[in-house]
Amino acid sequence: MSARPELASLESLAEFKAKRVLASSEKSKYVALEGELAGERAVVRVTKKHLPCSELAELSKWASGEMKLGCTLQNDVYAKYDGVCRGEDDAGAIGGVNVDVICPASDKHVAKYTAAEMVMISETGEAARLVTEAYVASVGEDALAWVYNILEGKAEADRVIFADDDVDTGFVLLPDLKWDGANAEQLYVVVLPHRRGIRTLRSLRAEHLPLLRNIAGPGKAAVAAHYGVPVSELQAFVHYVPSYFHFHVHITHVKCDIADASLGRAHLLDDVIGNLAAFGDEYYQQATLGLLLQRGSVLEAAHAAYNARPHDVPR
Amino acid sequence: MSARPELASLESLAEFKAKRVLASSEKSKYVALEGELAGERAVVRVTKKHLPCSELAELSKWASGEMKLGCTLQNDVYAKYDGVCRGEDDAGAIGGVNVDVICPASDKHVAKYTAAEMVMISETGEAARLVTEAYVASVGEDALAWVYNILEGKAEADRVIFADDDVDTGFVLLPDLKWDGANAEQLYVVVLPHRRGIRTLRSLRAEHLPLLRNIAGPGKAAVAAHYGVPVSELQAFVHYVPSYFHFHVHITHVKCDIADASLGRAHLLDDVIGNLAAFGDEYYQQATLGLLLQRGSVLEAAHAAYNARPHDVPR
Repeated sequence: MSARPELASLESLAEFKAKRVLASSEKSKYVALEGELAGERAVVRVTKKHLPCSELAELSKWASGEMKLGCTLQNDVYAKYDGVCRGEDDAGAIGGVNVDVICPASDKHVAKYTAAEMVMISETGEAARLVTEAYVASVGEDALAWVYNILEGKAEADRVIFADDDVDTGFVLLPDLKWDGANAEQLYVVVLPHRRGIRTLRSLRAEHLPLLRNIAGPGKAAVAAHYGVPVSELQAFVHYVPSYFHFHVHITHVKCDIADASLGRAHLLDDVIGNLAAFGDEYYQQATLGLLLQRGSVLEAAHAAYNARPHDVPR
Repeated sequence: MSARPELASLESLAEFKAKRVLASSEKSKYVALEGELAGERAVVRVTKKHLPCSELAELSKWASGEMKLGCTLQNDVYAKYDGVCRGEDDAGAIGGVNVDVICPASDKHVAKYTAAEMVMISETGEAARLVTEAYVASVGEDALAWVYNILEGKAEADRVIFADDDVDTGFVLLPDLKWDGANAEQLYVVVLPHRRGIRTLRSLRAEHLPLLRNIAGPGKAAVAAHYGVPVSELQAFVHYVPSYFHFHVHITHVKCDIADASLGRAHLLDDVIGNLAAFGDEYYQQATLGLLLQRGSVLEAAHAAYNARPHDVPR
């Protein structure tokens, strides 16, 4: 490559002619642009800085004294505001922020907003039977009243976008509450089968293949058709351990980041079908499954106790 | 719950006494605080707004005219700046940003910064043999020179944090280049085994269990000891399809979000060991594995052609 004078250091982007947005992330707050600078093609990527919160004192300064708020919502203990913050000088300018205020806040509110400490454990088939199954059994079926209400048409009937009434292989589809329904790249639909008694991924047997294939094929196709998204950009997965114990499937856009698709929790439905088709009933009784669990949660504590027990066999 | 007067709408957080940071995300730019407001416990969550980029015209306005830049790095075509943006009025104030400028930019630069369109395919064992294996075979071994340099101590020797020299079960550990080495929650270490010829996850057989268990046990423990992080907060996983075809493992903190842990790519090492231990050599020859691929990439095009072929058997 021939030597070439470097572009002089810029003091602003006044000369930059933006031509195209290459990428933009609502979650990570960046935008990448293609354009022209001093007659040459240029790429410019702008990323918002994190809030200055290394020191509580520093943080209090901008949060308390220098933020103007405009109320956008107020309901019971919850309020939302548009905020504009200014630092003491240009270098400290913080810019526009969204502010949520909960007051008075309960222990539950504080816990909900506190970053959870997570641990990864490996659950063998034996640990699933001895630990997780007991945990699942301890959760009463009345926690599923809301699911049965949907399946029986007693609740959220206007939200259902597709229904297949077969008692063995049928299901209803409805958008997840976390999705705004507008941004196609955050598409997030929940699949609730009519069939009861399948409590988790570990309960799946080869006999469930017709149900699973009906979700992976016609179910995913119905989502694609309803929202005008190519099937190839959708993924279907199940959670293990799920948050409620009526078997269900998540269908999302592959770019969706509001659904939990983390290692140690999300399992692709097509992989599950492949495991049952190739290895039969044994697969989910024998497989080792990583579990990402909240430290100190009931299930994590139960697994910790199980793993700390004296072992009969050398490991 | 007894009725209670609502908190008057706030005009600033001047009265808020911050006491504790509950959570803070560098990636998503938010901070959650516990403190006191009007004598009551309160939770306040502040989230940076996304950059205003719904319209290119609007975007050009703030990007070109109203951003002051301070250069922090300049090297060949790459430059980095600290930027401070001001909108026309308070409501439009944008705040502090990081700006990357690449000029002149090549096609490759533009492609790298362009949001990739991704598709999810399901790879059967047959598709792996007929499509992916051919693709992997087409990539010459000379692309692995940098790996062999590390394994032979000819490069990056000062970065290696642990080495086990056994030719069958040994490996070296070194921090991934994407990790700054400082933030423990982004901990990201790469494991390079000495053993050659294992090109991907699909190549794994029961004979590799001693190597895999040596990584999952002593390897993870060495990372934990070196960086002072509990083993329970680490996860080990492999990519399928990987970006280079010398078998390797990623060890990260469970909260790390700079490593690719996406569905259709990341597979927990303990799950892999469980599959080989319970189902033997057959597992990775028969399993269906979802692949998240860049639309239009060589591998995605090859799979699309394979899936579009006439089928001998009804599906």
